[in-house]
Amino acid sequence: MRIAVLGCGRIGRVHADSVAASARAELAWVFDPVESSAREVGERYGAAWATDVETVLGAPDVDAVVVASPTPTHVDLLTRAVRWGRTVLCEKPIDLDIARVDACRADLGDLTAKVMLGFNRRFDPSFAEVRHRVAAREIGKLEQLTIISRDPTPPPAEYVAVSGGLFRDMMIHDLDMARFFLGEVVAVSAQGANLVSTVFRDAGDVDGAVVTLKSADGRLATITNSRRCAYGYDQRLEAFGELGALSAANQHRTSVSFSGAAVTGAEGPVLNFFLDRYAPAYRAELEAFVTMTETGSPASPGFDDGRAALLLADAAALSLRSGAVVEVRG
Amino acid sequence: MRIAVLGCGRIGRVHADSVAASARAELAWVFDPVESSAREVGERYGAAWATDVETVLGAPDVDAVVVASPTPTHVDLLTRAVRWGRTVLCEKPIDLDIARVDACRADLGDLTAKVMLGFNRRFDPSFAEVRHRVAAREIGKLEQLTIISRDPTPPPAEYVAVSGGLFRDMMIHDLDMARFFLGEVVAVSAQGANLVSTVFRDAGDVDGAVVTLKSADGRLATITNSRRCAYGYDQRLEAFGELGALSAANQHRTSVSFSGAAVTGAEGPVLNFFLDRYAPAYRAELEAFVTMTETGSPASPGFDDGRAALLLADAAALSLRSGAVVEVRG
Amino acid sequence: MRIAVLGCGRIGRVHADSVAASARAELAWVFDPVESSAREVGERYGAAWATDVETVLGAPDVDAVVVASPTPTHVDLLTRAVRWGRTVLCEKPIDLDIARVDACRADLGDLTAKVMLGFNRRFDPSFAEVRHRVAAREIGKLEQLTIISRDPTPPPAEYVAVSGGLFRDMMIHDLDMARFFLGEVVAVSAQGANLVSTVFRDAGDVDGAVVTLKSADGRLATITNSRRCAYGYDQRLEAFGELGALSAANQHRTSVSFSGAAVTGAEGPVLNFFLDRYAPAYRAELEAFVTMTETGSPASPGFDDGRAALLLADAAALSLRSGAVVEVRG
Amino acid sequence: MRIAVLGCGRIGRVHADSVAASARAELAWVFDPVESSAREVGERYGAAWATDVETVLGAPDVDAVVVASPTPTHVDLLTRAVRWGRTVLCEKPIDLDIARVDACRADLGDLTAKVMLGFNRRFDPSFAEVRHRVAAREIGKLEQLTIISRDPTPPPAEYVAVSGGLFRDMMIHDLDMARFFLGEVVAVSAQGANLVSTVFRDAGDVDGAVVTLKSADGRLATITNSRRCAYGYDQRLEAFGELGALSAANQHRTSVSFSGAAVTGAEGPVLNFFLDRYAPAYRAELEAFVTMTETGSPASPGFDDGRAALLLADAAALSLRSGAVVEVRG
Repeated sequence: MRIAVLGCGRIGRVHADSVAASARAELAWVFDPVESSAREVGERYGAAWATDVETVLGAPDVDAVVVASPTPTHVDLLTRAVRWGRTVLCEKPIDLDIARVDACRADLGDLTAKVMLGFNRRFDPSFAEVRHRVAAREIGKLEQLTIISRDPTPPPAEYVAVSGGLFRDMMIHDLDMARFFLGEVVAVSAQGANLVSTVFRDAGDVDGAVVTLKSADGRLATITNSRRCAYGYDQRLEAFGELGALSAANQHRTSVSFSGAAVTGAEGPVLNFFLDRYAPAYRAELEAFVTMTETGSPASPGFDDGRAALLLADAAALSLRSGAVVEVRG
Repeated sequence: MRIAVLGCGRIGRVHADSVAASARAELAWVFDPVESSAREVGERYGAAWATDVETVLGAPDVDAVVVASPTPTHVDLLTRAVRWGRTVLCEKPIDLDIARVDACRADLGDLTAKVMLGFNRRFDPSFAEVRHRVAAREIGKLEQLTIISRDPTPPPAEYVAVSGGLFRDMMIHDLDMARFFLGEVVAVSAQGANLVSTVFRDAGDVDGAVVTLKSADGRLATITNSRRCAYGYDQRLEAFGELGALSAANQHRTSVSFSGAAVTGAEGPVLNFFLDRYAPAYRAELEAFVTMTETGSPASPGFDDGRAALLLADAAALSLRSGAVVEVRG
Repeated sequence: MRIAVLGCGRIGRVHADSVAASARAELAWVFDPVESSAREVGERYGAAWATDVETVLGAPDVDAVVVASPTPTHVDLLTRAVRWGRTVLCEKPIDLDIARVDACRADLGDLTAKVMLGFNRRFDPSFAEVRHRVAAREIGKLEQLTIISRDPTPPPAEYVAVSGGLFRDMMIHDLDMARFFLGEVVAVSAQGANLVSTVFRDAGDVDGAVVTLKSADGRLATITNSRRCAYGYDQRLEAFGELGALSAANQHRTSVSFSGAAVTGAEGPVLNFFLDRYAPAYRAELEAFVTMTETGSPASPGFDDGRAALLLADAAALSLRSGAVVEVRG
Repeated sequence: MRIAVLGCGRIGRVHADSVAASARAELAWVFDPVESSAREVGERYGAAWATDVETVLGAPDVDAVVVASPTPTHVDLLTRAVRWGRTVLCEKPIDLDIARVDACRADLGDLTAKVMLGFNRRFDPSFAEVRHRVAAREIGKLEQLTIISRDPTPPPAEYVAVSGGLFRDMMIHDLDMARFFLGEVVAVSAQGANLVSTVFRDAGDVDGAVVTLKSADGRLATITNSRRCAYGYDQRLEAFGELGALSAANQHRTSVSFSGAAVTGAEGPVLNFFLDRYAPAYRAELEAFVTMTETGSPASPGFDDGRAALLLADAAALSLRSGAVVEVRG
C-alpha cells in the first residue's frame, strides 16, 4: 500500500515515520508548502515530495492519504482525498468550527466512512488494554471513569491564540477517550482555572479545567486537564465498575528506582514528550489505517467520532461560560 | 482529663476506645439509652455508665464530652455540654438542617470555639502529611485536588432513608477535606448517578456522584464518590501544584504481594472497614481534642468547619437538582 | 494471666508494653538490677518491681515469665523460671555458646517445651502471611527463598565486642526465618565483608555477609545482611516456587508519595526502627505466649528452634573462616 | 557500514533485525548452512545470502561481522573474520572450553580488541542506568549487588545436553553483569538445586543455583538463577551502597493494573520472552558495535570480558562440586 502524507511538520513526521516503519505500507509522497520541510522528509524516507498539494493528490500511485496539515486545511484536504477515491487518516480536530464539520459531513455523505480520525490514544497499548478488559466485563458494568491528562509545558503564545482553546485543542483527546468507554454522552459540565500562565488568560482561554460527563445510561466520567506538569506528560485513566477497577498508570523510560535517606522507591520522571509516550500508539494507529484501507471496512474512530468529540468540547466551553450543565444531542 | 462519651453505638465505641488508649485521658462516663450498650461499654473500660444523659451531663468530675449519639441529638447535646462548661468533640454532621445549625451557632456565640468537629480524616497520618507538605510548598502553589472516596458496601435501606443523602452523609468528609486544602470554596457543581442499588433511587438519593469545587482563589477540586467498592474502602487523594504532586494511596494490612502466571505484584484488598483504615486518625483526633481542652485553644476543625461542609453539601445537592453551578457564600 | 518481665532495658520495655496492652494479660512484676530502670517501668505500668530477681521468681502470683535480660543470664533465668513451674518467653539467643545451650537442654529435658523463643519476626503480619500462603500452596512447592535484612545503623563498639558476631547477633533472626520456611537446613556457606565501619574489623567481626542455605529436601535460601542501611530498616523476603512468588516489601509510616521534576512516586524512608517495624509482631508474639501458657501446648518457636538457629549461625561463622560449605546435623 | 550476520537462527535474526533497523548500518550478507533459513532472512531484509561461510567471509563489501552461529563455531568464525580485517560482534560464550578460549586469545593477540562480546544486558536501558548512576556515586560506594535471573521455561532436553550447564549457558550473563558492576572477582561459591525438571539432573546439570561472588576490593554479589519462572522472564538487579540502593525492576507490556475483590494493584505477567525484554538492549548493542567499528576503539565488552565470565562460570561449577569457595585469578 502506497501512502501520501500531507504536512511535514511535527505530527506529519510522526506519521511519515510510522508509514516507513510499517511492513505493510510504503511512503509514496509527502507534501508541504515549505520546500525545505517537504524535501527533508521525502529524502529521509526515499519518498517523492512536492510543495503543491495538487501534485500529490493527482499522483496515480497513491492508495491512502494522511492529513497532517494545519487544522484549517483539514476539511478541504480530506474532502479532496476522499472524492479522489482514497482513504484518509485525518489528524484531529476535523475543524475548530462545528458548522464547517457539519457542512463537510453533509457534503461527503457515505464517504465519511473513508475518513479515520487521528485519535491516537485509542491505540495506546495500555488504554486499549483497559478498554478491552472493560468490554470483557472484568470490572462488571463500568460506572465511573477518571481521566487525568496534563501536558508537560504550555505551548507558545502564538499557538494558544489559534488553538481553539483548551477544550477543542487539548481535552478533545480526553473527550474522545471518554466516548470510547462510555458511548454516547448526554450532559457536560465544566469548570476552568487560570493558574499556569497569563498567556491563556490573555487569549481568553483557561489553562486548567475539570469536566464532568454523563453518559446516556447514567455513567459518570471526569477529566482533569492542566497545561503544565512538573513531572512530565501525565496521562492516566481509571475505569471503575461493580467488580473493581482497571488503571493505566504513567510510564517511564526505565524500570529503575532509587532509595536513599530522603526517599524510597523513587522512579524517574514520566515520559515527557507525547511522541515518546504515544510512539506505539501512532504505530498501531497507522496499522489500523492500513487494515481499514485494505479491507474497505468503515473507519474507526471515524468522522462522526471526530464530530462528536468536537460537540463535547463545544459543550464544555459553553458550560464554562454559562455555569450550567449542557445537554448534548448528537 | 476525664472524658464522657455520649452514645455507645459503633462510633461511640471507637471514641471510648481512643479515650481508654490515651495516656492523657480517662474514660469517666458513658451514656446510651440502651442499657445493654451503656453497661457493656462502661464495664469494658471501667467507666461509670448511665441510660439518662442528665446523669452524665451533671457529673461533677467530667472535663470534656464526646458527642457520638444519633445526628438529630447533636445540637441539643453539644449545646448542653458547652453551656455546662465542657469542651465537646462532636461527630459530624452537626445537623442535617443548616437552619438548625445556624440557630445553634447564634445561640452559642463565642462558645462554638469549644466545639471540635469529628472530621477524623484531617488526622489521618497520610492525608495530614500531604497537607503538611503542601503547606511547606513542596509542590509550589496547589492548583488541583483530586479526591476519590468510595465505601466498601452500601448502608442498609433504613439508614439511607434518614442519612440526609450522599452529599450530607458521605461526601461531607470529602468536602471538609477539600476545604482543609483549598480554604474557602465559592462554587460547587455536581452530577450524580444511580448504578449501585435501587435503595438509593427509592429514597430519592444518588449512589455515586462527582462534585467539582472552585476555591476563592481559583483552584479546582474534584470529589468522586461511590456507595460500593469491590476492592475495599477506597480513600485516595492527590494534590497537584506547580512543582509536582503529592498522593496518598490506599493502604493494606500487610506489605505482601503475589506474582504468578496471571498477575504480578498483586497486593491484597485495601483496608476494608473505616475503623481499620482510620484507626490512627481517631486516636490522633482524640489527642488533639485533649490538647485543645488542656490549652483552651479554639477547636480545629471547629463548629464553623462543620457548618461550612454542610453548606457545601447543600450546594452540591442543589446543583444536582438545578444542573447549574451553585455559588457559595459563607 | 499475670506476667513478670525480667530485664527493663530496651527490649524488656517492649515486652512490658505488650503485656500491658494485652486484654488477656497483666504485668505483675518487673525486675532489673538497676533500680531506676526497674522502678520506672514498674510505675509506668502499675506493676510491682524489684532489683533482685529472687523476689520476682519467688512471687506466688506469677503465671509466666519473659526473659529480656542480657544474653549471658538467659540460661540461668529461663532454667529457674521453668523449674519454678512457669512458662517462659526468652529473648534470642538462648546463649552465644552452643555448649551451654546443649547443657541447658539436657538439664531441662521435657521442660524445654515450656520455653518459647523470642523470634518475633515469625509473628510479623507480612512474613506470617507469606508463610501461611506458602503453606496453602499458592506458589506450589517453595524452591528459593531470598531474605534481605539490613539494620539502619551499626550498634556501638562496646556492643559489637560482646555481640557474638554478626551471624549470632543479627543474622540469627534471618536464619530462624529460613528455617521457618525451609524446615531442616543441612548445608551452610558464608561470605563476609568489612565495608561499613572499622569497629567490626577491629572486633574480628564482619559488617556485611551473604549466607546460602540448603534444606534437607534440596531447596535454597540466601540471606543478605548489612549493619547499615541509608533508607531505614531493610526487612524483605521473597518466596519463589513453581507457581510464582510471594514477596513481603518494606513498610512506610504513611502511604504518601511525591512526584516532581526529578523523581516520581517517591515514598518516604522505610520504617527505621525495629520497634516501629515490628510493633505488631511483638504484640502478636505476646498473645501467642499467653495462649501457649493457657493451653499448655508446646512452645513454638521453641527452645530447639533457638538452638537450631544458633547451630546455623555457628555453621555460617565456620564457613566464613574455612571457605567451605559446612554440613549441619541437628 | 555494511554488516554480515553469520547464523540465521533465533539470535541471528535478532541481530539481522537490529542491523536493518539501524540508520547507520546496512545488512549486506547473511549466512546459514540451512538454505531455507539463509534465504528467508536474506530476502526479508534485502541482503545477499549464502550457505557457505567462505562466500560471506570473502565478500569485499563487508565492514563488520556478527557471529551468531552455534557456540562450537564461534572461535573459528571470529578468528577468520578478525584476521580478514573486520570487527566482530560475537555471541556469548566465546566457547564452552576455557582452553580453546585461551588458545584463541594467544592466537589473536592484539586483534582481540576487534572482538565485541554479545553481553546484551549491559546495554539494557535499566541496567545501564543503574550502572551509570552507581558510577556517579548516587549510592556512594557500592557494597552489595543482588541479581535475580530466572528463565520463563526450561529449554528442550537436547539443548540442555549441549548447553555447557547452567553456569556457562545461563548464569554467564549474570556473571558478566556482576563484573560490570564489581570489576575483578576473586572468589566464587555456588550451591545448586534440582527442583524444576529431571531433564537437568539427567544431564548432570542443576536447574536452580545461588552463587556468591567477592570482588578484589571486598564487595559481595549474589546471583539467583532458576530455569523456570511462572510469572515470566524474571530479570532484576539491586545495587546497594553507603547512601542507598538502585533497583531495576521487572518490566511489563503495559502500565495497566487491576483491583478487585481478591487482589489490588495487580499487573500483568512480566515480559516473558528475552527478545521482548531485551529488544532495546539488542538495538543499543548493535549501535555500540557500529560506533566501535567506526572509531576503531577497543571493543567493550570485549574478548577478555567473555573469557572472564567463562572463568567465573567454571569456578562456580567447580565450587558446586567441591563445596568450597574457589579463588579466581584472571
